[in-house]
Amino acid sequence: MHSGMTLIDLRSDTVTKPTTAMRKAMAQADVGDDVYGEDPTVNKLQDAVAALLGKKAALFVPSGTMANQLAIRVHTQPGQEVIAESKAHIVRYEQGAAAALSGVQLHCIPGDRGLVGADLVEAAIRPSDPHTVRTALICLENTHNGGGGTIYPLSTIERIRAVAVDRRIPMHLDGARLFNAVTATTLPAASYAQHFETVSLCLSKGLGAPAGSLLASNDLALIERARRFRRMYGGAMRQAGVLAAAGLYALEHHVARLKTDHDNAKRLARRLQHIPAITISPQHVETNIIVFDVPGHRLAPAALVAALKQEGVLINAVGGTSFRAVTHLDVSTEAIDQAADVFARVLR
Amino acid sequence: MHSGMTLIDLRSDTVTKPTTAMRKAMAQADVGDDVYGEDPTVNKLQDAVAALLGKKAALFVPSGTMANQLAIRVHTQPGQEVIAESKAHIVRYEQGAAAALSGVQLHCIPGDRGLVGADLVEAAIRPSDPHTVRTALICLENTHNGGGGTIYPLSTIERIRAVAVDRRIPMHLDGARLFNAVTATTLPAASYAQHFETVSLCLSKGLGAPAGSLLASNDLALIERARRFRRMYGGAMRQAGVLAAAGLYALEHHVARLKTDHDNAKRLARRLQHIPAITISPQHVETNIIVFDVPGHRLAPAALVAALKQEGVLINAVGGTSFRAVTHLDVSTEAIDQAADVFARVLR
Amino acid sequence: MHSGMTLIDLRSDTVTKPTTAMRKAMAQADVGDDVYGEDPTVNKLQDAVAALLGKKAALFVPSGTMANQLAIRVHTQPGQEVIAESKAHIVRYEQGAAAALSGVQLHCIPGDRGLVGADLVEAAIRPSDPHTVRTALICLENTHNGGGGTIYPLSTIERIRAVAVDRRIPMHLDGARLFNAVTATTLPAASYAQHFETVSLCLSKGLGAPAGSLLASNDLALIERARRFRRMYGGAMRQAGVLAAAGLYALEHHVARLKTDHDNAKRLARRLQHIPAITISPQHVETNIIVFDVPGHRLAPAALVAALKQEGVLINAVGGTSFRAVTHLDVSTEAIDQAADVFARVLR
Amino acid sequence: MHSGMTLIDLRSDTVTKPTTAMRKAMAQADVGDDVYGEDPTVNKLQDAVAALLGKKAALFVPSGTMANQLAIRVHTQPGQEVIAESKAHIVRYEQGAAAALSGVQLHCIPGDRGLVGADLVEAAIRPSDPHTVRTALICLENTHNGGGGTIYPLSTIERIRAVAVDRRIPMHLDGARLFNAVTATTLPAASYAQHFETVSLCLSKGLGAPAGSLLASNDLALIERARRFRRMYGGAMRQAGVLAAAGLYALEHHVARLKTDHDNAKRLARRLQHIPAITISPQHVETNIIVFDVPGHRLAPAALVAALKQEGVLINAVGGTSFRAVTHLDVSTEAIDQAADVFARVLR
Repeated sequence: MHSGMTLIDLRSDTVTKPTTAMRKAMAQADVGDDVYGEDPTVNKLQDAVAALLGKKAALFVPSGTMANQLAIRVHTQPGQEVIAESKAHIVRYEQGAAAALSGVQLHCIPGDRGLVGADLVEAAIRPSDPHTVRTALICLENTHNGGGGTIYPLSTIERIRAVAVDRRIPMHLDGARLFNAVTATTLPAASYAQHFETVSLCLSKGLGAPAGSLLASNDLALIERARRFRRMYGGAMRQAGVLAAAGLYALEHHVARLKTDHDNAKRLARRLQHIPAITISPQHVETNIIVFDVPGHRLAPAALVAALKQEGVLINAVGGTSFRAVTHLDVSTEAIDQAADVFARVLR
Repeated sequence: MHSGMTLIDLRSDTVTKPTTAMRKAMAQADVGDDVYGEDPTVNKLQDAVAALLGKKAALFVPSGTMANQLAIRVHTQPGQEVIAESKAHIVRYEQGAAAALSGVQLHCIPGDRGLVGADLVEAAIRPSDPHTVRTALICLENTHNGGGGTIYPLSTIERIRAVAVDRRIPMHLDGARLFNAVTATTLPAASYAQHFETVSLCLSKGLGAPAGSLLASNDLALIERARRFRRMYGGAMRQAGVLAAAGLYALEHHVARLKTDHDNAKRLARRLQHIPAITISPQHVETNIIVFDVPGHRLAPAALVAALKQEGVLINAVGGTSFRAVTHLDVSTEAIDQAADVFARVLR
Repeated sequence: MHSGMTLIDLRSDTVTKPTTAMRKAMAQADVGDDVYGEDPTVNKLQDAVAALLGKKAALFVPSGTMANQLAIRVHTQPGQEVIAESKAHIVRYEQGAAAALSGVQLHCIPGDRGLVGADLVEAAIRPSDPHTVRTALICLENTHNGGGGTIYPLSTIERIRAVAVDRRIPMHLDGARLFNAVTATTLPAASYAQHFETVSLCLSKGLGAPAGSLLASNDLALIERARRFRRMYGGAMRQAGVLAAAGLYALEHHVARLKTDHDNAKRLARRLQHIPAITISPQHVETNIIVFDVPGHRLAPAALVAALKQEGVLINAVGGTSFRAVTHLDVSTEAIDQAADVFARVLR
Repeated sequence: MHSGMTLIDLRSDTVTKPTTAMRKAMAQADVGDDVYGEDPTVNKLQDAVAALLGKKAALFVPSGTMANQLAIRVHTQPGQEVIAESKAHIVRYEQGAAAALSGVQLHCIPGDRGLVGADLVEAAIRPSDPHTVRTALICLENTHNGGGGTIYPLSTIERIRAVAVDRRIPMHLDGARLFNAVTATTLPAASYAQHFETVSLCLSKGLGAPAGSLLASNDLALIERARRFRRMYGGAMRQAGVLAAAGLYALEHHVARLKTDHDNAKRLARRLQHIPAITISPQHVETNIIVFDVPGHRLAPAALVAALKQEGVLINAVGGTSFRAVTHLDVSTEAIDQAADVFARVLR
């Protein structure tokens, strides 16, 4: 990689750095001891996110993993089962936490680009029988990272919800990238969130805050139980308002601009489509994630990633001959075009 | 159900009652305190099972679930992942114990009648990556209960073993019904067991003992660790020799006769094939388990089970419109014919 | 040890072997599949124990450890705290199961020969505070093995119960040796049991059955939850009636005779008192356990145990210079006198 | 409490707010994605803390609880035992995490103001015996919060270390307030840390950073395992450098000034000594924590806390009739004198 070259980092939307304005908001944040519930900025963020999602309360936590795992913990008992899609974040990227922290079994359904229909969910619910494990929770992820930034159609969620209500099973939404779905569909966040007992939301992905997620619910007792487990898991921070201020800033300034990320993703997809070595379905790029294949290339995936890095473009290999590129606020449209040129050159 | 009627219980091979001769062996058992390792009959059984499986040591435990769960516990660390087939006993019938007791995630592969090939196993092994969970164990079940008593071809096991060796992942065999496979194929038990670091064996299914399973391994330190967890799980019994004596008797007298169960199962399958309401593939009846469908019947599955019970035949509904019948030493060939008559009459 | 010598085994009352009559009861037991709830002998034993303890239901399990751990599991949630005496069985001899299986913290109070007063229990209850762990259960052990077979005075239990009721904390009784207390005090078992939400009872200690314990409660839903965890822990056995029959026999024939064990224990204690090398308080021998010290002996504890074994007497070293001898149905009064002679000779 | 009154918050040294200079350091922090190991400020802080403690590596985590719990997790296996003092933070204030997350039992020794001697530690180590639980870790806390900010004498640590080395048991130091000990004794941090396999350090107590702790060790593989569990527990943050910058600032500017907190604590203790209602031993105030009793007061502890708050002084009741006041960088010497006046007035 050439000295002085600016890297175009498409590995993930988690790599964004706080902007000058966001840093200023953090530096001016009014803070207190959040373990005593006295951080005004944390409280303000929690209220704002609860309101956005149409829920009564929200809890600030260090990461999306903690938000998801607190949800699983408060909804289940050890030995029960949680339905999830096979490529979901809670299945692949949370270090087996559902089993290790909550003692629950994940019942995974392979989805179509991360999405599963109500019939498959219903078939995965265990019969009510003293011999079998008990289904205690249904988790969906929207947008679905492992599926390629896929948006869950609201009608599919509604049908799954009807099954869940009928079988009296609560639902959790891993909404780490919910605002990408909101931006793409222009549906309000609450229209999705209403179908779930708990919703997690991440500030540190496309929204560009340095850290922090929230878990929201209408059930205040559930949130208090989650607060106790947050302390157990080591997620209780003191003057967390310095991070919450970034979150508030992000909610105000970085939601609408997600459309740019989506446009950039589609732009990149169209460019990649014209590179013969690449197999891609641009119509599957629904938000800010582009998944594509480079079948039969002479370079192994890791070598290909290294070759692209040498030319200043960072992406991730995601298994087999698949690769993932993610657009975000630190990647301009110009950078997308430069990246496309690099892809064309390296894969020539 | 008519008063005085003798029930033909085809629900499971676990329902067998100890024979008079087995009871006599139990009553005469030389016993000691097994927590001190001083029960001679337990020690004899452990040695006998280890020898049969070609392993150095075996540990006596109350149930097949405990044998499997001790294996999972000693092979894994909390947060790791275990590969298993979707309908495996450890997935469906052990109350989420893998997650609740060992903190591990089950990575389930849907099999063909319970069997998965080496390619699917290999694809399920997680990449070595700090972000993803780590695959720590591969479990197979032979014969496969949920798959319909299916026998794992030795060549398939060998191919899976090659993958496991290559990826340095240990293997556990749920051999609760291993002797059904041994009897059907006439292959020695050790020819299967050699490919697994641990093997569980159940005395209380087709072998007809009242209770008890064993976990066998060549790794003596592993068996000692399992012994400690057996105590933690509450499986350390004192004069367990009274049960072990039944196990020794079963190994001596009830293995060869499994062929009768298999013949009876095939006999029943052929009879069922001629009942129009029933869909069944007799060639899939490889051992003592018969799975069949009754699609589109006017009675719901639970009602059909009740109707058969009314006529003296007990079977289990196993999901959808499927049913399972199991042959065992308390069901004679005459009883099989009577049961077939009942099926024909009830399903007319 | 001389060839042909009969060992006098005072290590524990767990070493007893089933008598001929007990074996006969086992051989004639009417059995069924207890996982389906169909073993009549198990059901009869469960009903008998429930009735004896004045509870509505009881569950048969393989061991006292499982009975205690099921109680802890159904009374608590992970992260809560259980109050216990420092030398209790659940603290020292259950392999950390309370933490490993239920995720709960043991708050240990050092007792006087295993007994703690209501004031110490009250002081150990955590304040109701979101920052501190929450006390979820109080466990007592009666008689107290580690304390030397001590009997919990009913009045002490009543005072602890008053605290527990006031603070709304359930209580569990580890009654592995409850019938030793019952025999010594002539109080009915139910007079103790009434103060506890759950009571465990072991058939395999002084009662002389080969294996088996029960967990009893008035709360039928709790027993059903315990049944599910019994399966998870691997304690669900099939024709468990062969063991339950021994338990029923023991309840009928081996309770009254515990008085002989107590008399033998006192007899041995008085003999030991006259051996200068031994420090013992015979008035502390309340049931069938004798704890004594051999301070400043030239032999290390393990060597002393070996020297006694050489002469045909088995006891356990229990820490420091303390030793424990336990009387039971396989040790006659003559054997006690012989053992006392051996002690005198070896410790001369 | 009078409107406009400035509260003197002596509840804890966790309530400090970041200074203007610290905020500036945070706003200018050079950051990256720490999940990829690319946050330069986090890396710099980790290296700085490792160097200060004489260790090879350190890991940044959100809280002291997570640092302690990661240590317990990587040193132990489920079912093992950890020795700790009865009032230790890991015992009382981490929500039973040792049991719930690591499955380990805490073996608590009541200390003298939080300190235990080598003899008590040695006596608490379980004998090596297959029947008993196994001691896997010894935890000390220095300074000891629950003990009243007590400093562990280095000689006591050395004697405990000798026992630990002899018995091959690793040691963890909860050094949340280690720099208070360092400041008071002028001993280098590494002189304490050298005796422990792992050391946790908190930036958010007397050091005044808004959040963040570190876990340090010489064992690089252990730190990598802790990093994986950090992700599982939800403690992996992205641009964590914004918090790490505060930590680096605190290490540079807030260590030496801890002496002022100690002087203020002694000053307050001397003032409280002259209030007749208060029982206090000023010689026991070794660092920034003052524990005192108000025996037999007409107001209940909670009411007394409220009465003091009414007058602008916040403290915590810590059980019985004991109270705790903590000095820190947001409490000036003048504020201490004002607080003393309030105490005198309210307790008159």
